[in-house]
Amino acid sequence: MKTRVSEILGIAAPVVQGGMAWIADGRLAGSVSAAGGLGVIAAGAAPLSWIEDQVRRARTLAPQAPIGLNIMMMRPDVEAVADLAVDLHIDAVTTGAGSPAAFIERWKAAGIKVVPVVAQAAAAARMQRLGADAVIAEGCEAGGHIGEMTTMALVPQVCDAVDIPVIAAGGIVDARTAAAACMLGAEGVQAGTRFLTVDECGVAEAYKRKVLEAKDSDTIVTGRLSGHPVRGLKNAWARSVRAQERRAVDPAELEGIYAGSLRRAVEGDVAGGSCMAGQAAGSVRERKTAAHVVRALSSGVAAGVAARGRMGVDAAGDEEGVHA
Amino acid sequence: MKTRVSEILGIAAPVVQGGMAWIADGRLAGSVSAAGGLGVIAAGAAPLSWIEDQVRRARTLAPQAPIGLNIMMMRPDVEAVADLAVDLHIDAVTTGAGSPAAFIERWKAAGIKVVPVVAQAAAAARMQRLGADAVIAEGCEAGGHIGEMTTMALVPQVCDAVDIPVIAAGGIVDARTAAAACMLGAEGVQAGTRFLTVDECGVAEAYKRKVLEAKDSDTIVTGRLSGHPVRGLKNAWARSVRAQERRAVDPAELEGIYAGSLRRAVEGDVAGGSCMAGQAAGSVRERKTAAHVVRALSSGVAAGVAARGRMGVDAAGDEEGVHA
Repeated sequence: MKTRVSEILGIAAPVVQGGMAWIADGRLAGSVSAAGGLGVIAAGAAPLSWIEDQVRRARTLAPQAPIGLNIMMMRPDVEAVADLAVDLHIDAVTTGAGSPAAFIERWKAAGIKVVPVVAQAAAAARMQRLGADAVIAEGCEAGGHIGEMTTMALVPQVCDAVDIPVIAAGGIVDARTAAAACMLGAEGVQAGTRFLTVDECGVAEAYKRKVLEAKDSDTIVTGRLSGHPVRGLKNAWARSVRAQERRAVDPAELEGIYAGSLRRAVEGDVAGGSCMAGQAAGSVRERKTAAHVVRALSSGVAAGVAARGRMGVDAAGDEEGVHA
Repeated sequence: MKTRVSEILGIAAPVVQGGMAWIADGRLAGSVSAAGGLGVIAAGAAPLSWIEDQVRRARTLAPQAPIGLNIMMMRPDVEAVADLAVDLHIDAVTTGAGSPAAFIERWKAAGIKVVPVVAQAAAAARMQRLGADAVIAEGCEAGGHIGEMTTMALVPQVCDAVDIPVIAAGGIVDARTAAAACMLGAEGVQAGTRFLTVDECGVAEAYKRKVLEAKDSDTIVTGRLSGHPVRGLKNAWARSVRAQERRAVDPAELEGIYAGSLRRAVEGDVAGGSCMAGQAAGSVRERKTAAHVVRALSSGVAAGVAARGRMGVDAAGDEEGVHA
């Protein structure tokens, strides 16, 4: 399955694995890359030595395949992580939580593909101007830190705003959702939640079970009032956070509630931690391998891209000038 | 373009026009029905005599075609409106803001098709058990009163939960979005925002201009804290409402802020009223006729349904038992 996304990233299947902090390690990323997708290690807030170890681990599993690194731009030592990506000859960097503007030139000079996550069309256009190779347009049905726009509304508007290829994220969990995203104009997909329950994912068994048992309405957004919305599965922790937000406790106190919450869930405390997951968790009912998920999503991309091609770009938008 | 939706509703194009209170009148509904879709008059909070007039007006424009009526179930005199639907030989009733359980039998006995709007899979399953003919699965990118789930996450999970046909709503604005929704399993679409700017829609010119000029990030949700979230275009009114919500004024006071706000916008006060619209407003750039929009959405449904058929139901979900 070839699209501009697979060509630019040098991968066989235009499927990117989400850079989930505390979760996306060398084993998961290596398994995804070995299956033909782009496996992504999440730098998160982890020490540089951990990142280095995980990149080595991924390369052992997928010696010939590209490996990605996700970098949160608000990390205090982001400069050092940016340089580490160069030193380790990372193939692609995905970025979140802030603008990668300061680093794009450096990465491109080192041959690294730059793929920022965006939640608005204007941000996508800005990233294209700065030299990004592609953008990940992520809707608010995704798990973890989210924006305001949904995948269905965001992806076509991002596609209209840029010429570089668009990778859709948020709600992408199987072939049908991947196909729908490509009907909207995407040429590849990123999935997070779906990879939580694969055999090669290291989150605690209790976390995996919570995802497998979730129904559609089992996610909740915390942090809206503080301006940093995060989607996860409903549990005691989330209910308590929402109650505290409503009482408008001061920001420093809220910081304390969030600190370490994701890590606790990843290690098995699914009542007292933050079980980040997207609204599509309700569609995840069985454990599979990373390779199965890459194949399923890739077949959806193929179906969607082909169908979009048959429809024709002008007919799709139905407006003169929609692709100005 | 035939799907189960068009067959059940007796229409040529599986396209339903959203029942927008204060907006969806006999002229708009009649124009949509004359073009082959299902035009829907919004009863909203309007007097019974107004509803009767609008139904007559719609039938003048589309003498042979079915006409729908949207009923808000929390309306105090809902009983009288339910009976009026029977007396007027309405062809299809769409319902929102509460459960139509008490009326489904009465409507079905009168030959009226019943199509509730749902925002969760469990509600869709309940409506099927009660005898609904189809459901409209509406994502939170829609304008007006919204739920929590997005179209991309909701539609496939509703399709898995019911056997009756699913009509997708929320973010459906052109052929590509209609096609994507049908890739997810829908067999028809409902659009609201897109019909706001058609020639036959009676909202004030200033409201239409605001929709045409909106970009993707120009909508905002008010009422989340009061438990009745509503999406509309950002303006002075919405900003003031959000500020008051944060100060946690008492519910009665908030009621006063909302009262009459939509009507003010419809009549032209786009700064001091509630300009309800969805996130896909950014994709609406030109004025068209209702017939143009019905054709565009219908061609998208055709492309999506055909592509979904080629992909195959099992491959689409990629899970054993996904269509249990």
